[in-house]
Amino acid sequence: MKNTKIKVGILGANGYAGAETLRLIASHPFAELCAVTSRAHEGKRVCDVFPALPCPLTFVSADDNALKACDVVFSALPQTAGAAVIGKLIDSNVRVVDLSADYRFDDVSVYERTYGVTHPRPDLNAQAVYGLCEVNRDKIKTARLVANPGCYVTSVLLPMLPLCKAGLADNIIADSKSGASGAGRKSDEAYSFCALDESFKAYGVFTHRHAPEMREKLGKSIIFTPHLLPLKRGILSTVYFDATDAAAAERVLQTAYANEPFVAYSQSLPELSSVAHTNRCVFSARFDGSKGIIVSVIDNLLKGAAGQAVQNMNIMFGLNETAGLPIYAPV
Amino acid sequence: MKNTKIKVGILGANGYAGAETLRLIASHPFAELCAVTSRAHEGKRVCDVFPALPCPLTFVSADDNALKACDVVFSALPQTAGAAVIGKLIDSNVRVVDLSADYRFDDVSVYERTYGVTHPRPDLNAQAVYGLCEVNRDKIKTARLVANPGCYVTSVLLPMLPLCKAGLADNIIADSKSGASGAGRKSDEAYSFCALDESFKAYGVFTHRHAPEMREKLGKSIIFTPHLLPLKRGILSTVYFDATDAAAAERVLQTAYANEPFVAYSQSLPELSSVAHTNRCVFSARFDGSKGIIVSVIDNLLKGAAGQAVQNMNIMFGLNETAGLPIYAPV
Amino acid sequence: MKNTKIKVGILGANGYAGAETLRLIASHPFAELCAVTSRAHEGKRVCDVFPALPCPLTFVSADDNALKACDVVFSALPQTAGAAVIGKLIDSNVRVVDLSADYRFDDVSVYERTYGVTHPRPDLNAQAVYGLCEVNRDKIKTARLVANPGCYVTSVLLPMLPLCKAGLADNIIADSKSGASGAGRKSDEAYSFCALDESFKAYGVFTHRHAPEMREKLGKSIIFTPHLLPLKRGILSTVYFDATDAAAAERVLQTAYANEPFVAYSQSLPELSSVAHTNRCVFSARFDGSKGIIVSVIDNLLKGAAGQAVQNMNIMFGLNETAGLPIYAPV
Amino acid sequence: MKNTKIKVGILGANGYAGAETLRLIASHPFAELCAVTSRAHEGKRVCDVFPALPCPLTFVSADDNALKACDVVFSALPQTAGAAVIGKLIDSNVRVVDLSADYRFDDVSVYERTYGVTHPRPDLNAQAVYGLCEVNRDKIKTARLVANPGCYVTSVLLPMLPLCKAGLADNIIADSKSGASGAGRKSDEAYSFCALDESFKAYGVFTHRHAPEMREKLGKSIIFTPHLLPLKRGILSTVYFDATDAAAAERVLQTAYANEPFVAYSQSLPELSSVAHTNRCVFSARFDGSKGIIVSVIDNLLKGAAGQAVQNMNIMFGLNETAGLPIYAPV
Repeated sequence: MKNTKIKVGILGANGYAGAETLRLIASHPFAELCAVTSRAHEGKRVCDVFPALPCPLTFVSADDNALKACDVVFSALPQTAGAAVIGKLIDSNVRVVDLSADYRFDDVSVYERTYGVTHPRPDLNAQAVYGLCEVNRDKIKTARLVANPGCYVTSVLLPMLPLCKAGLADNIIADSKSGASGAGRKSDEAYSFCALDESFKAYGVFTHRHAPEMREKLGKSIIFTPHLLPLKRGILSTVYFDATDAAAAERVLQTAYANEPFVAYSQSLPELSSVAHTNRCVFSARFDGSKGIIVSVIDNLLKGAAGQAVQNMNIMFGLNETAGLPIYAPV
Repeated sequence: MKNTKIKVGILGANGYAGAETLRLIASHPFAELCAVTSRAHEGKRVCDVFPALPCPLTFVSADDNALKACDVVFSALPQTAGAAVIGKLIDSNVRVVDLSADYRFDDVSVYERTYGVTHPRPDLNAQAVYGLCEVNRDKIKTARLVANPGCYVTSVLLPMLPLCKAGLADNIIADSKSGASGAGRKSDEAYSFCALDESFKAYGVFTHRHAPEMREKLGKSIIFTPHLLPLKRGILSTVYFDATDAAAAERVLQTAYANEPFVAYSQSLPELSSVAHTNRCVFSARFDGSKGIIVSVIDNLLKGAAGQAVQNMNIMFGLNETAGLPIYAPV
Repeated sequence: MKNTKIKVGILGANGYAGAETLRLIASHPFAELCAVTSRAHEGKRVCDVFPALPCPLTFVSADDNALKACDVVFSALPQTAGAAVIGKLIDSNVRVVDLSADYRFDDVSVYERTYGVTHPRPDLNAQAVYGLCEVNRDKIKTARLVANPGCYVTSVLLPMLPLCKAGLADNIIADSKSGASGAGRKSDEAYSFCALDESFKAYGVFTHRHAPEMREKLGKSIIFTPHLLPLKRGILSTVYFDATDAAAAERVLQTAYANEPFVAYSQSLPELSSVAHTNRCVFSARFDGSKGIIVSVIDNLLKGAAGQAVQNMNIMFGLNETAGLPIYAPV
Repeated sequence: MKNTKIKVGILGANGYAGAETLRLIASHPFAELCAVTSRAHEGKRVCDVFPALPCPLTFVSADDNALKACDVVFSALPQTAGAAVIGKLIDSNVRVVDLSADYRFDDVSVYERTYGVTHPRPDLNAQAVYGLCEVNRDKIKTARLVANPGCYVTSVLLPMLPLCKAGLADNIIADSKSGASGAGRKSDEAYSFCALDESFKAYGVFTHRHAPEMREKLGKSIIFTPHLLPLKRGILSTVYFDATDAAAAERVLQTAYANEPFVAYSQSLPELSSVAHTNRCVFSARFDGSKGIIVSVIDNLLKGAAGQAVQNMNIMFGLNETAGLPIYAPV
């Protein structure tokens, strides 16, 4: 790794998650951006389409040979859209980090019910590793296909998985609030500035697709309500649960990620701005008798998407896990 | 009421709730602003201190005789600060709507524990009416002293009171989110633009003073978590509960306020911007088996403070309850 | 006017300016909303399409007879789109306030060059009155067709017209900044929340269509640069000019609108929030030798559109000019 | 430089510019953060005071010996406050980048008039280099004391200096708009969220202290008006001027920074979000006859403060000028 950089491709680099991946890779000390695709912008230079990304590369099509020459490809294509090309890349020995939901579920039938589709490649699903870095690090190291977790899911799983594994939490309710970038790049009046500015709403009550993902990974029922914040980046999840042993639960939360660079327990309640534009997850807990409340924050586009995807790449290629990933939050 | 307008005074008109009361009264068709007080700005013209309020009146002190000549005085002074002057006004036969928490609790000891003070006038407390307009309308009509409900409390009580009275809700959790004006006019870096913009946080977890107010009025235990939104106005409460009979609960919610001009059940999930700058409360409900979720929205400064206070005045003086109160929300 | 209210219709009530007109008329003490049109929502109830507007009326088509039964119709249709129906209404003795640019120009050829269209009704143009209320009040009283001024234009003309008429300003540059509602209701990624939040830009440099409108009304050349603010409502114009006599200019500015309820000279520099949600225009001036700078603020949807339109209606029907129009700005 | 990193100290690391410098240095590949000072937080760990900055260092006092052991110290102390300690550091052979205005002026008397103070060290002023990187690169290389330019000034000088040097611009007016972080960390109601959100204003008309700095560096009179945007980061300057030769001016602008990594001419008008969180300055120009308009954008805390300061350090120590500095803007 001394002299050669990891060759990286990005499928769907025009969406927010793809663009953030592009941005991270462009300044990554050990990676080199080799190919980026966008159906909408094929043939145009990235810098001409996105003045925020002064990248000299030209968008190519998803079947361009440059992708097969990569060491790793990030797919930020929508659900099922990337299946065929991901399959071919894996067959060509290119490792893949998929930011879509296609390979996140152990149980293909849950995936199919949740997303209302037929799974594109159930064979590949069996070998995909769920890329929650701090939890599945060992499997990620050797994975050929990593399924990057959902954004809301990451904010809930990181604090709740250790509790659930220890049998310390029941009747879980996750009330989550996300910035508007979570909805992706949209030409839709419902996501216009005037529709969201100075407003706030719940959506997908009892029906959001991240709930089944949380359920499968926690091995537990959970009520999940997402909300839309009038800000660009960040998820804050307020998680309510019955704490069978509050003291033990607090201990688990304080120690579970003690040596992790990106995940931290905090005595004080965390604010979104402390993790926005970073790859960190910070959470705090309060208990009142047998009732527990955890507040957990991440940047939905970094630890909730592109950042965790690059962290997965770092693990897959034996790099320092923090390489190219921001830890300090800007003003 | 034909020829003479109600004479109105406002104590503490410099805070946000006081300033909004001033604004509403200034354009109220049947009320006349006669006296406004502000310790900080005594002797200055309102319009010179607040360019947004081109009002020719001059701020006077809280013991100015002009207040005793009023038909009704709104007190927007902080907890306990208004007690003495309110007492004197009541003794002088001036009716009072108090926007502070001083007279909200039936049980004075709960008030004293919650606010860490000795109640200033327990004798007056006994005759104060809790000014949740749609619920206590009859008592408000003849009340001499009305205790205007807390903002978070209003957003939760309006949908939950009918359910709790009907014995249809248990294990209630209210996850509430408020705009920054809820914190009042502040010279505090923690409420500076750069601290709140693009951020979001929970606060007062398990300790907020509106929780005991909710508990007393609902007659039920409740978990309440407030959060701070990066917007000026509005509260959205997401309320989780066990629905002993979901169908019955839905029926109660749909009918409880069927004829109310300011409170509405909505099939679709409500957004803050639909009620911001209005005196409305809109809520919607979703059920999944025995689990119920209500989403309720108000403008924290109007239905949650100044608007409900003026609605109380309208009731107290036999006016059309909607007089001078906005129902349509701006873009 | 004692017993009967003015019957009002609104064409294009689904756009922002139309919706704000609807909101103002719905709470106007002397007007009654009789008909609202929207091609997109014809047949649907207003309250079902716009939860913020709990109005029981149903959207009808633009040729519905209910419009002809109105005393006055506001047209918030786009340029040229309303020409035919406005013509028929005028022919049916319905007075019209047109919020589009169709009838704003004295010189039809300038209109046609600026908007790249053929004028729909040059005959009507001759009798249209330019509805800058404080300036053209007398003509507006008897006008059958009032052309409501452009939003940016209003913010610049109110302070600059008295100066230009007095021959006191030259080499005028207007650097204007508008809230996002100025662009109208849009399904366009360029106006999405994530595109505008935390951003700011100039647009239409040397090419914006409000420049020729300013030029014709001022009778003077002017450089005009609009910018897009990350907020919903308001325009602030910073106007630079050579002051041939600074003392005289200041005097003119201080006295020109001395008795106007909606227009005020201010010693201190005005902020947008002091006039947002009101029908006011406030401006201040600073001079340094022969260089003058005026800062002028309005709410683009009220004094810059719907508010001035209703003010025009008030003038046309002999009402108190402030009826139904907000003067105090909310927190 | 291969094996040892540059030892860095920061004076006043608790303000916004200081905190951003800290953040940049913490992830700089060739620098090592050795000492940070804050009078308010002395003795506390950075991470305990600022959860956004998980830095294990403890704030020390400004005369701590650790600063003298540094290769370079950034001073983000207010005007005149840092003079004494900066003097001692220079005397101890520590190189200094001063983010205050103390050493920015060639003419000490202009500084003293502008800031209303007596210059703390006129002797040092003579050897200070004005740190506008792209313009003074050669002098910066060997400078012991670099005066980092003002934020507004940077946005105006970068496009206007080449024009003025070529004698191609006259009658310059800079209408600038800055995000709220430009005002610094404040406990002041005027900078509270509710005061700035959804608002906008001009301030310091004809009196702002960055105007004399622009004048000295351009060698030309200039009118400068700053405004306060409701966003955290970024400055957009709209600069009006008489173009004695528009074609020549355009050519100069297109070529002046052709090989610079951080400064770019753009055909399309730039938006703030394209440079926010980066060290870039992007500008565009439009001409109409002899009238020119330039729109220039930077991040006020990076290219306008901490970023340019680190770029200066990179130049002073012979590093790649882009080391540790962001070029791609986030979503």
